[in-house]
Amino acid sequence: MEKKYTQGGFTLPGEAGYEQLTLALARKWGADVIRDSDGTKLSPEIVEAGYSIYSTICIIRQHNAFAAQHPDSQQQTFLCSQPVVATGDTLIIEPMQGFFAEQFELNDSAEALPYWQVYDRTTNTVVPLERWTYSGSRVVISQCTPWHEYTVSFLAWRIWEEINMYNHTTNAWTSEHLRQLDPRHPAAWEYLQQWLEDWCVQNPATNVVRLTSLFYNFVWIFGDDLRNRHTFVDWASYDFTVSPAALRAFEAEYGYALTAEDFINQRKLQVTHMPPTRAKRDYMTFIQRFVAEKAKVLVDIIHKHGKLAYVFYDDSWVGMEPYGKHFTSIGFDGLIKCVFSGFECRLCANVDVPTHELRFHPYLFPVGLGSLPTFSEGGNPSRDALLYWRNVRRALLRQPVDRIGLGGYLSLTLPFPDFHDTIESMAIEFRRIREMHAHGKPLTAKCRVAVVHTWGSLRSWTLSGHFHETDKHALIHINEALSGLPVDVRYLSFEDVENGALGDVDVVINAGCTGDAWSGGDAWQSAKLVAELTRFVHEGGVFIGVKEPSAIGGYHTHFRMAHVLGIDLDTGARVCHGRWQYDVEEAPFAIAPTVLGSDSRLYLTDGKASVLCEGNGAPQMTLNRFGKGFGVYMSDFRVTPESTRMLLEMLLHLTGVAPADVYMSDLACVETAFYPADNTLVAVNNAEEETSTVIHTPKGEISLTLAPMETRIMPL
Amino acid sequence: MEKKYTQGGFTLPGEAGYEQLTLALARKWGADVIRDSDGTKLSPEIVEAGYSIYSTICIIRQHNAFAAQHPDSQQQTFLCSQPVVATGDTLIIEPMQGFFAEQFELNDSAEALPYWQVYDRTTNTVVPLERWTYSGSRVVISQCTPWHEYTVSFLAWRIWEEINMYNHTTNAWTSEHLRQLDPRHPAAWEYLQQWLEDWCVQNPATNVVRLTSLFYNFVWIFGDDLRNRHTFVDWASYDFTVSPAALRAFEAEYGYALTAEDFINQRKLQVTHMPPTRAKRDYMTFIQRFVAEKAKVLVDIIHKHGKLAYVFYDDSWVGMEPYGKHFTSIGFDGLIKCVFSGFECRLCANVDVPTHELRFHPYLFPVGLGSLPTFSEGGNPSRDALLYWRNVRRALLRQPVDRIGLGGYLSLTLPFPDFHDTIESMAIEFRRIREMHAHGKPLTAKCRVAVVHTWGSLRSWTLSGHFHETDKHALIHINEALSGLPVDVRYLSFEDVENGALGDVDVVINAGCTGDAWSGGDAWQSAKLVAELTRFVHEGGVFIGVKEPSAIGGYHTHFRMAHVLGIDLDTGARVCHGRWQYDVEEAPFAIAPTVLGSDSRLYLTDGKASVLCEGNGAPQMTLNRFGKGFGVYMSDFRVTPESTRMLLEMLLHLTGVAPADVYMSDLACVETAFYPADNTLVAVNNAEEETSTVIHTPKGEISLTLAPMETRIMPL
Repeated sequence: MEKKYTQGGFTLPGEAGYEQLTLALARKWGADVIRDSDGTKLSPEIVEAGYSIYSTICIIRQHNAFAAQHPDSQQQTFLCSQPVVATGDTLIIEPMQGFFAEQFELNDSAEALPYWQVYDRTTNTVVPLERWTYSGSRVVISQCTPWHEYTVSFLAWRIWEEINMYNHTTNAWTSEHLRQLDPRHPAAWEYLQQWLEDWCVQNPATNVVRLTSLFYNFVWIFGDDLRNRHTFVDWASYDFTVSPAALRAFEAEYGYALTAEDFINQRKLQVTHMPPTRAKRDYMTFIQRFVAEKAKVLVDIIHKHGKLAYVFYDDSWVGMEPYGKHFTSIGFDGLIKCVFSGFECRLCANVDVPTHELRFHPYLFPVGLGSLPTFSEGGNPSRDALLYWRNVRRALLRQPVDRIGLGGYLSLTLPFPDFHDTIESMAIEFRRIREMHAHGKPLTAKCRVAVVHTWGSLRSWTLSGHFHETDKHALIHINEALSGLPVDVRYLSFEDVENGALGDVDVVINAGCTGDAWSGGDAWQSAKLVAELTRFVHEGGVFIGVKEPSAIGGYHTHFRMAHVLGIDLDTGARVCHGRWQYDVEEAPFAIAPTVLGSDSRLYLTDGKASVLCEGNGAPQMTLNRFGKGFGVYMSDFRVTPESTRMLLEMLLHLTGVAPADVYMSDLACVETAFYPADNTLVAVNNAEEETSTVIHTPKGEISLTLAPMETRIMPL
Repeated sequence: MEKKYTQGGFTLPGEAGYEQLTLALARKWGADVIRDSDGTKLSPEIVEAGYSIYSTICIIRQHNAFAAQHPDSQQQTFLCSQPVVATGDTLIIEPMQGFFAEQFELNDSAEALPYWQVYDRTTNTVVPLERWTYSGSRVVISQCTPWHEYTVSFLAWRIWEEINMYNHTTNAWTSEHLRQLDPRHPAAWEYLQQWLEDWCVQNPATNVVRLTSLFYNFVWIFGDDLRNRHTFVDWASYDFTVSPAALRAFEAEYGYALTAEDFINQRKLQVTHMPPTRAKRDYMTFIQRFVAEKAKVLVDIIHKHGKLAYVFYDDSWVGMEPYGKHFTSIGFDGLIKCVFSGFECRLCANVDVPTHELRFHPYLFPVGLGSLPTFSEGGNPSRDALLYWRNVRRALLRQPVDRIGLGGYLSLTLPFPDFHDTIESMAIEFRRIREMHAHGKPLTAKCRVAVVHTWGSLRSWTLSGHFHETDKHALIHINEALSGLPVDVRYLSFEDVENGALGDVDVVINAGCTGDAWSGGDAWQSAKLVAELTRFVHEGGVFIGVKEPSAIGGYHTHFRMAHVLGIDLDTGARVCHGRWQYDVEEAPFAIAPTVLGSDSRLYLTDGKASVLCEGNGAPQMTLNRFGKGFGVYMSDFRVTPESTRMLLEMLLHLTGVAPADVYMSDLACVETAFYPADNTLVAVNNAEEETSTVIHTPKGEISLTLAPMETRIMPL
């Protein structure tokens, strides 16, 4: 095989003590880069073997000595106590009760206390300062209203870096708890710059500094009770960026002060899945700018030493969203994304950065997701790798990345030689696909899909974490399905829509639950938004609503787009209203009933929509002609081969694209991509069985039989 | 058997042409009254046989000639057109489109048109009068905002009395459509009084005038499309009382004007299951007073002629709610309630009126509920009667009524002699139970239950119709279960609770869905309400929340009583919050898991509540100690023998009553009542099989075997 397919674009995790294995696998897998990992080191023999070297650093967490000397340089957060009911007119609350004392420490410093707030949660009002006192870790509230609930919101130091804490508590580590510095602290910031400078000097062999990642971790709050250990996790929230200094700087810049309640939000916190308040939006922008400014300084140091700076997009990535306004200003040379799913591949591939790299799963660790064995007894890492590859492959067919790689302990792969072979052939397939992309884009239907939600392009492809962390939300299933379809996909905010972004869009998808960021919540107060989408469909567009699309209280329909969808949801007021009877009609495209919901509250608005599927006595999927366009409703969506095929057929049918125009196979488990520049068709078998299929092409049908999971690359 | 058990308190429907049958069954069933029914007449032979005679009249609907001469004396309603999307700046709407033209006729009179309203439903704003015109059954709206939805709200004449319309369309009658007069119309009112006067003179043999019922029907809107025939039905709504005259009188009295939108309410109408607006409350009071005033005039006429006036509590009963403030002022001599269920028996029994009568089911008609055969081939009316009797019997054991009876065509019973026997023994049982009540009240546990909802005592026992019409609501299931339990039951409004009504209450039940009248909706904004209930439980009370109790948005918990219940519902904002793990614990009382829900959104607030049942990965029933009292949560409640038993055991356990104190049996299907004055225990077998059970009494256990459905009356 040509060398271009067997070598390059591959990052291998090296391991000191296993030099022979490292170099043998580097050859087998065609690595051009060797990296260290969290827990592994590279030995001189590896470093000097002629490969490019990536070195991993977590900039904020390797400085316990400094943190001990400067405890006020550590990171913080707002927390809120458990609510406590007043049984008389005096009430004592211990704010820290219920939180994990190894993670948090009360910040009762003179600069922090003014940010504390005592709330009457029964009336939603702040208790005046003169009615409470603090001493000895307790707040004493006087002049309470009996039988009301009170809380104390307070600042807390975060004394254990959360990724370290997670690994520690999960794997029963006994090493020192790592702390984390806040770059907003002047002394810490000086220290960190110097530390990086020194590091670069001390690591001359490193070609690429792989930052894991920047400054602020996603929010991860542990409880002290093991029954409630994971009290809160939000992969895209900003609570862990806060400090009195940040709050002062914000106020100086924005002209208004944030309070604890702007973060605590009635103890619900400001989760990414809900639309942000104005204050949260401002604060995010403020933090994003800060993170970008500081990150640029670090990247400049790295560049000054002739190294490249890649960033790993996980862990302490809050504020550096790759689709945020300030990301490109940092000057990263590469973005590395660990991938379980297709959407993560697209998320990485589309970022404006020179090099895109995927870190594949399984990670070379004894156990993987859900604590199941991978590289240990009972594990089947070769199959795991293939299943993840199946998810990623279909996305890679649509949009290329530059590199792939692995992480972890290479030595753990020794008992699994089939894993070595699997990765070898996967790497070859990756390079062949990458090469076709280099020659020209794959054929894409003239079917331009816009997913519309609160965050718009800022959260393109992702909601806020991996698939399995957000899989309660229909949208992540839709994103995953879309990630491998031959259609054009973009992410728009509601403001984008109001400002005319539908000009070159054929299909709009809105998928979420009432009030959440994905459905849109209060954005649907906008008559302009409703009118623009109504116009869009009436003039020929397609609006696909999933679960509780365009949903908001206060209007004549719960779905603001009910007139387009022909279906609405009764939140209770319509219990006396009769419902239109219907017959279930045959759909003009494949239907995957099992991925739909069973919401009995759904009803036809005017009896005109075609019901394509019913459940629980109510329509669960409808198709409604509206003007020249269509409204499609689905009560849920779960990604499966069949539902992915349903989505594709629906999109093509409603935008007038013939299956043969996109080389569609006749089986849901076989997907294709056609590369016009190479006149080459790729067919992938997503089934674990041998599969015979027919592919419809503009020049006729192609019959073929694919081996289990095969990638067939066929010049036509 | 003593005559007191075989004779009296029974109303028989007579039928001309079947004189022998009528008199034979009168003897067999021990009737003291013979009545006519809708569709039947009594012959002189029957009338002169020495029985009391009830005559049925529907005061507002037997006057088509008058209605033809005075079309403006007919009743009206507000309707709202289908919403229509403007595709340009002019829009034409035909308001009547979609409504049943045999029921409604546009009222475009000079006095009606000012009440019409054109709405932009996209912005929730009224379109100014100068922007629309009306002619030829069409409204033309100009200067529309393109892509907005518009509706026309308008007044319509109701030209077909709804009960007649229902019977007509259901049974394919061909007779003349009956119209209905509005007593607010001065000429109609004069006419109706004179008509009643004349009727009394012409019917000297009538002892009791049975009014079916008063003036205004519950709301029943038919659509012209058979797929949407039953467009709207609300058994307690007030739309059918409206007219320009009523609106003018309201404005004069209340100092503010009602608009169409006060009724139309974004096309949702003001359904009884939702909390009323202030305007609706005022309007209800206004109508209740009007109905009572006019009804009193009619009752006075009846009394003047030496007859009694009974009212049938169904059909045109809007405004005469028997628990309303003005009902007793009418001066009715009796209230007749048709019953399928136990709660209807209690509803009737508790009304402040001299005579309470139940009309049993099945009605003597060929088909019954759900169009199933009763007195026709395939029917089993004897069993039907027994099953309804089973529902009613347990309520009759708790609270007596004075009379029972039947309605319909007696001749239809001829092929069903077992029905004759069933009614005979049922009547005897009724009289025996009634006699025990006359000697003294049955034993009731010191367990005083208050069901708390928006309507309070106005809607004691009922929601707004028969069981099968409201059975989506958990509360009707609870009411039905309670109707036969040996506990004290009352119905309180939230205002009652705030004003101290819990002083002599042990248990509060709140059962409904977010925003509905039964849960309470905006009532839960009241911190005073929350505090009072919190105090109540903390000091030893029990709060039972079912489905979405005390639910409202905008606070730190969705259930305002979450601190008492120990459980709350996540409406989306808590998707990133971990949930307390729990073990399912054994309950201190019987659990009926199948009647609970499966709501995955439920979570424990602080991990302290005992989880008694789980479903869909979440707690579905919890028990939480709070102060000296308890909070109990159930995610749903459906009435079954097992769930009824669960409720009873729970109530007794949490209020410290021993099962033996209330003579509880050891089987859910056997219920009991103990009458101290007669020292008599009654045990009823609700099963259709022979059942052996043990009854726990203060003096030891009683073992007995009951025949299927048996009522065993045992002096101890």
